[in-house]
Amino acid sequence: MRRFVEAGVSPGDLPDAASRLLLNPHESALLTELLRRRFGEREREEALRHGWCVVDITSAAYPERLKQISDPPLALYVRGDPAWLSRPAIAVVGSRNATLYGRSAAEALASQLALRGLVVTSGFARGIDAAAHRAAVRAGGGTVAVLGCGLTVDYPRGHESLREMVAQHGCLVSEFPLETGPRKENFPRRNRIIAGLSLGVVVVEAHEKSGALITARHAAEQGREVFAVPGNVFSPSARGPHRLIKDGAKLTESAEDILVELAAVFTPQPLASGGAAPAAGTVEASVYAALTPEPVHADELSRKLGLPMASLMPVLCVLELKRCARQHPGKRFSLA
Amino acid sequence: MRRFVEAGVSPGDLPDAASRLLLNPHESALLTELLRRRFGEREREEALRHGWCVVDITSAAYPERLKQISDPPLALYVRGDPAWLSRPAIAVVGSRNATLYGRSAAEALASQLALRGLVVTSGFARGIDAAAHRAAVRAGGGTVAVLGCGLTVDYPRGHESLREMVAQHGCLVSEFPLETGPRKENFPRRNRIIAGLSLGVVVVEAHEKSGALITARHAAEQGREVFAVPGNVFSPSARGPHRLIKDGAKLTESAEDILVELAAVFTPQPLASGGAAPAAGTVEASVYAALTPEPVHADELSRKLGLPMASLMPVLCVLELKRCARQHPGKRFSLA
Repeated sequence: MRRFVEAGVSPGDLPDAASRLLLNPHESALLTELLRRRFGEREREEALRHGWCVVDITSAAYPERLKQISDPPLALYVRGDPAWLSRPAIAVVGSRNATLYGRSAAEALASQLALRGLVVTSGFARGIDAAAHRAAVRAGGGTVAVLGCGLTVDYPRGHESLREMVAQHGCLVSEFPLETGPRKENFPRRNRIIAGLSLGVVVVEAHEKSGALITARHAAEQGREVFAVPGNVFSPSARGPHRLIKDGAKLTESAEDILVELAAVFTPQPLASGGAAPAAGTVEASVYAALTPEPVHADELSRKLGLPMASLMPVLCVLELKRCARQHPGKRFSLA
Repeated sequence: MRRFVEAGVSPGDLPDAASRLLLNPHESALLTELLRRRFGEREREEALRHGWCVVDITSAAYPERLKQISDPPLALYVRGDPAWLSRPAIAVVGSRNATLYGRSAAEALASQLALRGLVVTSGFARGIDAAAHRAAVRAGGGTVAVLGCGLTVDYPRGHESLREMVAQHGCLVSEFPLETGPRKENFPRRNRIIAGLSLGVVVVEAHEKSGALITARHAAEQGREVFAVPGNVFSPSARGPHRLIKDGAKLTESAEDILVELAAVFTPQPLASGGAAPAAGTVEASVYAALTPEPVHADELSRKLGLPMASLMPVLCVLELKRCARQHPGKRFSLA
């Protein structure tokens, strides 16, 4: 009966026959579906009015990977192209109260993963999630944001431009009816979808009680890979990833650590050999412009550009991956 | 024959009979002993003149743990009390070019380990090694420095006061004759002794080619535990520890992670329940004086004391272990 309670439907709302059906897990699922569909009619029309869609579990657009979890959502409300949901994806998740280091690590990873052809899934929260969505799009890839509220709800505040960005270069999805508020109990449920859509979950920063650890637990239970980015042992935000590594998650320094583990299920796109200059007006372009054929120490670049090291390093990482920059011993960088 | 080459004795130096003996590993060891003893007579007298001693493998003062390795030194030159060599010890090692973070982590760990009754072994090098030796002594514990040169050689320069400190609160040891220079090939050999004296080895920071990784490899081969402290994924000094963790070393955030693994072989001293104020004139005393009964954020303490966070945090760690300080949620600290 737990599922109904979690979905906000109390057992008292159900007719007697339905209560009896709940004793059988298979029929209980059918019942859930019926209930959802009844909910769904009005909703479906409302979604269509916005130009969004509802992808239910019988639809060809419903991602196969998500069907494999023990408790798949019966329908997803989708803003953007639902085709993104079925591409090979990896979740990059972490704390809302991220440090500069955490955001930089999330950006470096998400860009690297996007460049190799993986969709970056995350939870659209402030901090690590937002950094991951943005970096994936900026690297030219796609991203999927799984919400803990309905699609029409403006949450978290201040994410208007990120919302547009994700809708253009991926999609926003939610299993909750359109106007559902960001209730606290929605988020742990939402996290099973983040994991369920992905081949693996990377936790970048997480306090000991962070929801990112719930996403990692879902991934482990679903048989997906769990990755964790280490950090400063004095930083409370590194406690979560360190806990996961102690429990068997793969310590992750770069996308390569992830690609190696996924080799059996995902073939990465080869990196462009070109080294085409990055688009003008981006941070990448300014860093690229500061590089010379002679190797220069990263500290000097940091001073020259007025960019803190934690912001500069992920950009250099990406330029290196794009074959625009080259790293030399002693943290020095040159044009490739 | 490899052992002789490593020890700087070329096969050409040996009589024919000796060359033949080398084919038998057991007899080869006897030969090595004979050669060493011949070397040893003059040396022994010279050592005694300094008030130092020579502990050979037949002596009761020779540490049992070191006898268990495949290639134990036949004799050790010891400055300080050789009894320290037989106490339960843990090695804390890492890069010469340590970062502030690395030194702080080494200090926090070495103090915590010393407070729980473990001797801290290290290689007397600049950076992590020096930080570990100093912190162990400052926490009231003992430390053993294993040198890659003879005891009379002033190497590395600038370690005069550390040398005195170690001789007073532990000992300096070397298997090399007193005036042996710090030859490059001595250090990998020296590292087997660091590991051999210890129940486990903690690598704090290490570039990918650091000697600390050789010490860790020796520890693994000797069946000792290997621990590694994670760090910033953009920092080259974290590459070594991260490599070790990927290969199975225990991720280590604090002394507790080490004590748990050593539980079968070492019973830690209980922490003092007292919370006696730290000795005047120490950094610990200034931080202690800045604490109040009301919790204060670490950032504020850092500003107030003019101490960077990376230096402040290990001191707070130690004060907490000594029951002088108490940590509250949100990185805030008060008097205990």
